[in-house]
Amino acid sequence: MNNLRALILAGGVGKRLVPLTLCKSLIPFCGKTIIRYVFDDLKAAGINDIKVICPPANIDQIKKSFLAKDNVSFYVQKKALGMADAVLSVPDLDKKPLIIVNADDLLEGEAFKQFVEQIKKTESQIILTGKYYKEYFPGGYFVLAGKKIKGLVEKPPKDKQPSNFIRLVLDYFKDPKEFINYLKKVSSEKDDIYEVALDKMIKEENQADLFEYRGYWQSIKYPWHILAMMKIILEKRMVKNISQSAQISPKSTIKGKVVIESGVKILEGVCILGPAYIGKNSTIGTNALVRESMIGDNCVVGFATEIARSWIGNNCWFHTNYIGDSVLQENVSFGSGAVTANLRLDEKEIFIHKEGEKINSGRMKLGAIISKNVRIGVNTSLMPGVIIGNNSVVGPGLVLSRNLEKSSACFAKQNLEIKQNNVVITCR
Amino acid sequence: MNNLRALILAGGVGKRLVPLTLCKSLIPFCGKTIIRYVFDDLKAAGINDIKVICPPANIDQIKKSFLAKDNVSFYVQKKALGMADAVLSVPDLDKKPLIIVNADDLLEGEAFKQFVEQIKKTESQIILTGKYYKEYFPGGYFVLAGKKIKGLVEKPPKDKQPSNFIRLVLDYFKDPKEFINYLKKVSSEKDDIYEVALDKMIKEENQADLFEYRGYWQSIKYPWHILAMMKIILEKRMVKNISQSAQISPKSTIKGKVVIESGVKILEGVCILGPAYIGKNSTIGTNALVRESMIGDNCVVGFATEIARSWIGNNCWFHTNYIGDSVLQENVSFGSGAVTANLRLDEKEIFIHKEGEKINSGRMKLGAIISKNVRIGVNTSLMPGVIIGNNSVVGPGLVLSRNLEKSSACFAKQNLEIKQNNVVITCR
Amino acid sequence: MNNLRALILAGGVGKRLVPLTLCKSLIPFCGKTIIRYVFDDLKAAGINDIKVICPPANIDQIKKSFLAKDNVSFYVQKKALGMADAVLSVPDLDKKPLIIVNADDLLEGEAFKQFVEQIKKTESQIILTGKYYKEYFPGGYFVLAGKKIKGLVEKPPKDKQPSNFIRLVLDYFKDPKEFINYLKKVSSEKDDIYEVALDKMIKEENQADLFEYRGYWQSIKYPWHILAMMKIILEKRMVKNISQSAQISPKSTIKGKVVIESGVKILEGVCILGPAYIGKNSTIGTNALVRESMIGDNCVVGFATEIARSWIGNNCWFHTNYIGDSVLQENVSFGSGAVTANLRLDEKEIFIHKEGEKINSGRMKLGAIISKNVRIGVNTSLMPGVIIGNNSVVGPGLVLSRNLEKSSACFAKQNLEIKQNNVVITCR
Repeated sequence: MNNLRALILAGGVGKRLVPLTLCKSLIPFCGKTIIRYVFDDLKAAGINDIKVICPPANIDQIKKSFLAKDNVSFYVQKKALGMADAVLSVPDLDKKPLIIVNADDLLEGEAFKQFVEQIKKTESQIILTGKYYKEYFPGGYFVLAGKKIKGLVEKPPKDKQPSNFIRLVLDYFKDPKEFINYLKKVSSEKDDIYEVALDKMIKEENQADLFEYRGYWQSIKYPWHILAMMKIILEKRMVKNISQSAQISPKSTIKGKVVIESGVKILEGVCILGPAYIGKNSTIGTNALVRESMIGDNCVVGFATEIARSWIGNNCWFHTNYIGDSVLQENVSFGSGAVTANLRLDEKEIFIHKEGEKINSGRMKLGAIISKNVRIGVNTSLMPGVIIGNNSVVGPGLVLSRNLEKSSACFAKQNLEIKQNNVVITCR
Repeated sequence: MNNLRALILAGGVGKRLVPLTLCKSLIPFCGKTIIRYVFDDLKAAGINDIKVICPPANIDQIKKSFLAKDNVSFYVQKKALGMADAVLSVPDLDKKPLIIVNADDLLEGEAFKQFVEQIKKTESQIILTGKYYKEYFPGGYFVLAGKKIKGLVEKPPKDKQPSNFIRLVLDYFKDPKEFINYLKKVSSEKDDIYEVALDKMIKEENQADLFEYRGYWQSIKYPWHILAMMKIILEKRMVKNISQSAQISPKSTIKGKVVIESGVKILEGVCILGPAYIGKNSTIGTNALVRESMIGDNCVVGFATEIARSWIGNNCWFHTNYIGDSVLQENVSFGSGAVTANLRLDEKEIFIHKEGEKINSGRMKLGAIISKNVRIGVNTSLMPGVIIGNNSVVGPGLVLSRNLEKSSACFAKQNLEIKQNNVVITCR
Repeated sequence: MNNLRALILAGGVGKRLVPLTLCKSLIPFCGKTIIRYVFDDLKAAGINDIKVICPPANIDQIKKSFLAKDNVSFYVQKKALGMADAVLSVPDLDKKPLIIVNADDLLEGEAFKQFVEQIKKTESQIILTGKYYKEYFPGGYFVLAGKKIKGLVEKPPKDKQPSNFIRLVLDYFKDPKEFINYLKKVSSEKDDIYEVALDKMIKEENQADLFEYRGYWQSIKYPWHILAMMKIILEKRMVKNISQSAQISPKSTIKGKVVIESGVKILEGVCILGPAYIGKNSTIGTNALVRESMIGDNCVVGFATEIARSWIGNNCWFHTNYIGDSVLQENVSFGSGAVTANLRLDEKEIFIHKEGEKINSGRMKLGAIISKNVRIGVNTSLMPGVIIGNNSVVGPGLVLSRNLEKSSACFAKQNLEIKQNNVVITCR
C-alpha cells in the first residue's frame, strides 16, 4: 500500500509502576497488550514494515504479543539509554520514510490513518504530532507559526505555553538519515537527546509540519494510569462479545457493552454492568456485581462481591469484598469482608506515597495498588492509595493505611480481654 | 361547615432530640411533616380557620409546610415560655370556639372528626381528650366522675392513677375568653401554667367533658420516637403508590405497602419489603434490601446494603452496610462494610447516654442516632444506641461504643507488626 | 427372615468433641441421628432383634431416636469401662448368633446386607470386617492368610502394615458364648480388652473369616469429622425432597440435591446449591447462599449470608455473614459482618489446639467449632480452627485466633483518638 516503515519504541521500564512488576506496553486490556493495540492500529493504517526495539529483559515477553505472520522485526537496545539510543540501535533505518511511535501510548484508532493521509497529501519532510489541550498540561509544547513547527519547549510554566499543542511521540521523517545524523551529533546531560535533536533539526531545517490531534491520548506512568487506560479501552475500543462457551445464568443481568470470554461462568443474581470485560475461565459468583472493570483469566469473584472501576489481573480470588478503583496485578486474594476504601473521609484528592515522595494522583476515587501473590485477611480495610508489594500477606481485621514493601507480613496486635461471662444465654 | 377555629402549638424546640437538629413538628414522614399531618386532619374534620404559633427561629421553615391556598395564619411566640405563653401570644382568640392541638402529636386520622362530632352533639363548654391506657403510663391523668372531668393529676405514682385516661393536648373551649383569663391569672414555678390553669378552671367551673380516645397516639421526645412515629405512619397513614417516573427493574421485588417517589431507581435483585417509603430521586442499588423503613430524597442505598426499620434523611449514601433501627438525619455516608449493631449481645434493653444521664429507650433493638454531615469509615461498627453529632468523621475499622459530640473526628490507633514474609505465595 | 441379633454399642462419650456437648451417635444429619442410620441399615439387612447398650447419661436421649414399634431393647452400661464391659453388661447374649456394631460408625447402606449374605453363605463361626485401604491408615490391621484372619495388630508403624485391611467394628459370632468367655478371661492395662480377646480367640480357635469392605466409612472423633460425616450423608444418603408446606420464592434458585423441610421459607434472590439440607421452620433470607451444608430447625440465615460446607444446629441466627467449613452446635448467632475465616493465609493445614495439644485436622479448609448458646459480635473475625465453648460472648470488631473456654466473654480494648474535626462536611 505504501512504502512507510514504523518503529515502535518498547523501551519503557516502568519504574514508576512499582510495586507492579508489569512492563508498561505488555499490560493486557481486554486480553490484548498495549503494544498490540499500537501494532494493529499501524497495520490498519496500511503500514506493513514494522520494527520493534526493546530491552533485552523484555524481548521474549514482547514477542508473545505477535504471531509469525505479523512479520515484525525485533531489535534489542542493550542498555536503557533513552529514545535516541533506541533509534540508533536499529540498523538500516535510513532506507525508507519512517514513523516512530511509543509502544505504550494509546491514541484513537483513526489517528494513524489520518497521520498517514497527511503524509501522502503533503509531501512534508517531517511531521510531528501535537495533541490539542485547551488547559495547561505539563508536557513538551510546540512553538508554532501557523501549521509550521518552529521549535519545542519542555514543560513551560503555566500561562507561558507557546501554543495549545503538546508533543506526542508520533513522528514522521521522509528521510530518516538526516534525523539520525542529528541524533548522533547532539548531546545532552539529561535523558532528552531525542527531543534536543528534534528541536535542533526543526530550527536548522525549518520544514517540520504539525499533525493536529484532538482525540484521546493515554500513556502509562503511574499505576492509576492503568485505570485511565482501562476506561478508554472499555469505552472506545472494546467490541461487545459474549462467548458461546460461557455459562450464563438466566437469573443474572448483563447490561451495556460487555465482553465475556470462553469458559466464563456467571452465576445467579450476578450483575455485570458494562462496559466490562471478563477474562477466560473466570467465575462471577452468586449475587456479585462487576461494573466498569476488567477481570483477568481464571479469577473467582465470589459471593456478594462488588468490583467497580478496577483492573484485576489473572488468578485473583474474592469473597464478599468491595474492590473499587483498584489495580490488582495477579494472584491476589481477599478474605471475606475485606474491602478497599476508595474515597477519603474528607473527600480530598488521593496521594500516593512512593520512595519518600507524595504524589497527587489527581483522583477523588482511588483504591489499592497491589502487586502479585498477595493475600488479604478477612474483614481487613485497605485505605485509599495504599500500595502493597508482591509476595505479601496482610492479616485479618486491620486497617492498612501505609504501604507494604514486597515480601511483607503485616498483622495487628490486639488487646483482648477475656472474662467470665455471667449472662445466661438462652434461645430467643 | 362550622365556626370552629384551631390553634396549632408549634413551639417544641426538641432539646431531647439532640444530636438531631430537627424541629420536631417538621420531621418529614413519607414526604410530609408532622405539622402537615395535623393540619390535614383538622381540615378533614371541617376546620378551616387554622392558626399556628411558632418560635421566631422556626417560622420560615414551618411556613414551607403550607401553601398560600391553605390560608393559615402564623404567629410568633417571642420567647420559649411554654404553652400558656404561646396561646396568649395569639391575638383575638376569644371570638370563636377554639380547638388547641400540638404540632407534633399524631393521632388517628378519624380522631379530630370524632372530636368535632362530640363538640356538635354535646354543647359542652370544655372538652378535653383522654387517651385510654390499660397499663400505667407516666403522664397527666384525668380525675373523672363518669364522663365529667373533675381535675388533673400530673404523673401520679404507679397504682395511684385516678383513672385510665391520660390527657392529650386536644382541647376545646366553647368560650376561649374564659380559659384565656385563667391563663392570665394563674402562676407556677414550673413550665405548667397551661395545665394549672386548666385544672383550676375545671374545678371552679365544673363543666369539662371527656373525649375518650382509644386509638394510637405518638409524639416525639427522644430520637427513637422518630422510629415509633415512622412505624405508625408506615402502617396506618401511608397510601401505597409507585410513581410513573420511577425506574424499577423487573428483577427487583416490591412486596407489601410501598411508596416509591418520582425519579427513584430500583436496580436488579433489590427487595423492598413494605411498609416502606423511598423518597425522590433515590437509588436502591443492586441486591439491596429495604424493609419497614423510610428513605429520604437523593439517597443511594448501594450494593448489598440492608436498611431495616430505620428513618433515613436526605442525601445519605450506603455501600454494603447494615443499618437497623437507626435514625440518620441527613447527608450521612457509610463506607463499605460499616454496620450498626442494633441488639446487645446480652439482649437487654438499650440505654442512651445523654448529658451524664442514662436513659432507657425501652427498646430491645436500637441502632445509631446520627445527625447531619457525618462520614463513617469502612468496616466500622456502631454499637446499639450510639449518638453521633453533626459534622463528624468516624474512622475505618473501629468499634464505636460511646457518643461523639458534634465536629468530632474519631480514629482507632492500631498496633501493626510488619515483618518479612517468608512464605512463598503461589497460584492456587 | 433370619435368627440374627444385633448389638449396637452406643457408649461413646465424645470427649474429643469438646467444646461440643453432643453425644456422637445422636448428632442429627438431615433430621436423623447416626444411631438411627445404623439401626435402619440393620433393619434393611433383615435383622429384627436389636439391642442397644448405652451410658446412663444418654439413655433417655438415645431412646428418642426410636419408636415403640421399632421394638428395640435398651441396656445400661453403668460405668464407661469400654467395649468389652459394654457387651458383658447385656444379659443373655449367648442364645443367638450375634452381630456387634458401633452406634456412630456410618458405612454404606448395602454393607450390612452384604455382611448378612456372607454369614448365610459361609457358615463361618466368626466374621470380622476389614476396610480396604491402599494407603496407610492409623488403625488396627488384620493379619491375613488368604481370606482367613490370623490376628490383629494395633496401629503398626507405616510400611509395616500386615495387610491392607483395617478392622471396623462390625463383628459376627455364630456362638457368642465363646467370645463372651474370652471377654471375661482376658485382661489388659489399656482400654482394649475387646480387641485383646478377639485376637486371642482368633489365634486359639483359628476360624475367623474376613468380610472385605471397600465402601465409605466415617466415624466421629474430632469435631471436623462432623463435616466429613455430613458430606457423606449429603452425597450418598440424603434423598431429594421439598416439603409442600415450604414457602419458596419463585425468585430463588434451588439446584442439585436439596431437602427442604416443612415450614421453611426461602426468600427472594436466595441460592441453595445442593447437596444441602434445610431443617424445619428455618428461613433463608433475601439474597443468601447455602451450599453443601446442613441447616438445623428454626434457623434464620439472614440477608446476604453465605453458609458453605457447614453443619449448623438448631436455632442459629445469621445476618450478612460468611460461615465456611464450620460446626455450630445450637443457638449461635452472628452479628452483621462477622465471618469465619476457613483458609490460612499461608494455605497450610489447619491445626486445632486442645488441652495443650496441637492436633492436625488434615484439612486445608476449616472454620470455627462453636458450642451452644454463643453470641458473636458484628464485624468480628473467627480464625481457622478456633473453638468456642458454650454460653460465650465474643465482642464486636475483633479477631479471635485463640480458643474460648465455656462461659467466656471476650472483648477487644481499643485505643480511640477523638479530636476536633476541622473539615466541613457538605453534601456531595
